[in-house]
Amino acid sequence: MRIYEMLHAKRMGEEHTRREIEELVRAYTAGKIPDYQMSAWLMAVCCRGMTARETATLTDAMMHSGDVVDLSEFGELSVDKHSTGGVGDKTSLILAPIVASLGAKVAKMSGRALGHTGGTIDKLESIPGYRTELSREGFLAQVRKVGMAVIGQNADLAPADKKIYALRDVTATVDCAPLIASSIMSKKLAAGAHNIVLDVKVGSGAFMKTREEGEALARMMVDAGRACGRRVTASLTNMDLPLGLAIGNALEVREAAAVLRGEGPSDLREICLALAGEMLALAFSIPAEEAKEKARAVLADGRALETAERWIAAQGGDARVLTEPNRLPTATEYPILAKEDGYIQSMNAERIGIAAMALGAGRRTKEDRIDPGAGIVLATKTGDLVKKGEPLAYLYTGKPHTLGEAESIFRGAVTQGRNAPQGMPLVLSIIR
Amino acid sequence: MRIYEMLHAKRMGEEHTRREIEELVRAYTAGKIPDYQMSAWLMAVCCRGMTARETATLTDAMMHSGDVVDLSEFGELSVDKHSTGGVGDKTSLILAPIVASLGAKVAKMSGRALGHTGGTIDKLESIPGYRTELSREGFLAQVRKVGMAVIGQNADLAPADKKIYALRDVTATVDCAPLIASSIMSKKLAAGAHNIVLDVKVGSGAFMKTREEGEALARMMVDAGRACGRRVTASLTNMDLPLGLAIGNALEVREAAAVLRGEGPSDLREICLALAGEMLALAFSIPAEEAKEKARAVLADGRALETAERWIAAQGGDARVLTEPNRLPTATEYPILAKEDGYIQSMNAERIGIAAMALGAGRRTKEDRIDPGAGIVLATKTGDLVKKGEPLAYLYTGKPHTLGEAESIFRGAVTQGRNAPQGMPLVLSIIR
Repeated sequence: MRIYEMLHAKRMGEEHTRREIEELVRAYTAGKIPDYQMSAWLMAVCCRGMTARETATLTDAMMHSGDVVDLSEFGELSVDKHSTGGVGDKTSLILAPIVASLGAKVAKMSGRALGHTGGTIDKLESIPGYRTELSREGFLAQVRKVGMAVIGQNADLAPADKKIYALRDVTATVDCAPLIASSIMSKKLAAGAHNIVLDVKVGSGAFMKTREEGEALARMMVDAGRACGRRVTASLTNMDLPLGLAIGNALEVREAAAVLRGEGPSDLREICLALAGEMLALAFSIPAEEAKEKARAVLADGRALETAERWIAAQGGDARVLTEPNRLPTATEYPILAKEDGYIQSMNAERIGIAAMALGAGRRTKEDRIDPGAGIVLATKTGDLVKKGEPLAYLYTGKPHTLGEAESIFRGAVTQGRNAPQGMPLVLSIIR
Repeated sequence: MRIYEMLHAKRMGEEHTRREIEELVRAYTAGKIPDYQMSAWLMAVCCRGMTARETATLTDAMMHSGDVVDLSEFGELSVDKHSTGGVGDKTSLILAPIVASLGAKVAKMSGRALGHTGGTIDKLESIPGYRTELSREGFLAQVRKVGMAVIGQNADLAPADKKIYALRDVTATVDCAPLIASSIMSKKLAAGAHNIVLDVKVGSGAFMKTREEGEALARMMVDAGRACGRRVTASLTNMDLPLGLAIGNALEVREAAAVLRGEGPSDLREICLALAGEMLALAFSIPAEEAKEKARAVLADGRALETAERWIAAQGGDARVLTEPNRLPTATEYPILAKEDGYIQSMNAERIGIAAMALGAGRRTKEDRIDPGAGIVLATKTGDLVKKGEPLAYLYTGKPHTLGEAESIFRGAVTQGRNAPQGMPLVLSIIR
């Protein structure tokens, strides 16, 4: 193993060969390279970067370090979506039924809440009876029958990424675009879908704070996925403020159900239609605008809702939550009132995510238990004019002692001012 | 311990505080920081560099991780010299007696051969009876009485450097100027001398291949030493070809003795006078030119030779080797003859050092035993006109089976051509 030479080469900004990267991943995963050499390599990558070819090779090598789900029976119809993580992002719950109701196949493995961002699996677990674990065969059988299934991430996917991520986590090498891109894509590719739509969040609530950072990351992920033979597009979407109004697990399921019923906040609906359009465009090789109109139609005529009901029922959940939201867990409501008149100038989505976490909607440590009813529902959003005494938001929690901290964090996240701020588009750009 | 934050800060090119670096060195030496975090930090330093202040702090912290020799009894008269390592560099054997004979105090701890470069202690061990280990008190008593002593490096000096160097050695973070500078200086400062002259070798036989690299390293070392309250100057000297004619342990002692007797190659004598001038200039606060003339005088009138005899005898060695060189170990001589007419265009000193190592003059691995009589004596040097059939050099070895490889390496290191090459000065520049 030429690890010493690889360390020196990367330190000098040189490019590794495919064989070197494959051998690095194989040997490290097998315990044949010590952590102190791998961490030095990771730091060199953070400082010197990786070429698109290196990133694609690393992605490919990590993907093949474990199981790769075989979705070949679905041909070009299998489609997946990945979000880089946002606040109030419940799009998966809406997108999957939309595209499945049109014949695309969604065999989705989702993650849990991470820091201030929510996780699809935590949200689904707030539905009474919903099972997040299925056997491989049960999972595929459900996709065949219903068109979709959503389960928790299987530990056998990309074990090399898991081991490398644990080392990055303690060596300050997490926030490095080529390492983020290869980590995300290795798991996503191992999940098997032929078509992948990436939703790269940009703004105060996202890991990528600027459009430039987001575009660079999106480009790396698209290139890495295509180099592995998949069809991939990326949409850069606005996460400068929370998506929709609800943040928190049962609260988000409730809001997603509203959109599936043709109601709900328009920003959430529009972003779902845009992303569903991208997914359908890939799966059926049709123009994105045409695909988006198909998506709009199945939202309007109830076909997406019906697919969602069949999906949740198939996984043991109480599908009545979609039309009778009071069947979902709830917590006590506490309003936050505006202290002055003024337009909402900005809402720091990360801070609002942290406020929701404080109320019990997320985990500060791995051991924390989530309160499914906890969270925040915004009463106003950036650009709205609010009068003193009117509600800014409603907090929900089963632990009233958290209210003080959560309110203080929330108020610190919101600024009011005399003039209406300039609006920002929901979709900033698309890499097709 | 804020090691994670330090890793992130250095990755981003930020400067550490004194307290952070001190805590890093302390905690790592105490085993409280794992190797995988330290190696990531070392790699970040290689990629992002360190400021002069950081380098000085790291040097200071590593110096204080173990014993610091107390030479305060010698006031401002204690003086040391450090060479960054060359081929045929036997200057210490000549410099120390010169300056000691003029009243400076040399309490010197030297190292062993490293790669293609020789080590003073290996050279001294070729003198029958010479003891390279003395008790701390015996060492200081000899310096008081004779003016000088030269012993092996004590393991208790700068243990932090020892531990960090071992990690650098396996993570491709050795050849990084601020780390080299702090490693060298921490040991040198721990050896206690008030005045330190650095001989930074530049050229094909040195670790620093270009004058720019050498000057940057020299400047870092000078700054780090001065920040710790010592008087330090650095001379950049030419190591594009071996120094003097002899490479190999007993062969070099023989050549050093010749210089002490007023004979020997002029390049070696002149560089010794220049460095002795720097050492005396610091110890006695006099101009370097005046100091150099004093040095020339003690070489000419035999006082330096007399001091050398007293030194070697005091350490149990047979001082007669200085005037009767055949008392030194010898090996069989094998000439290498020129295959064509022509001026010597260049002599790659590193390759010649490797050829000498192959003959038994150095160690390929730590376990190798040195053959004290083995080595090379050049018959010609860069710039000389050589005719076909005339000797280029003489090889010495007790293992004739190594001759083929050594001759081949040596011939590969020497180029001949039609025109005389341009000469290069012995001393390239001085940082005072």
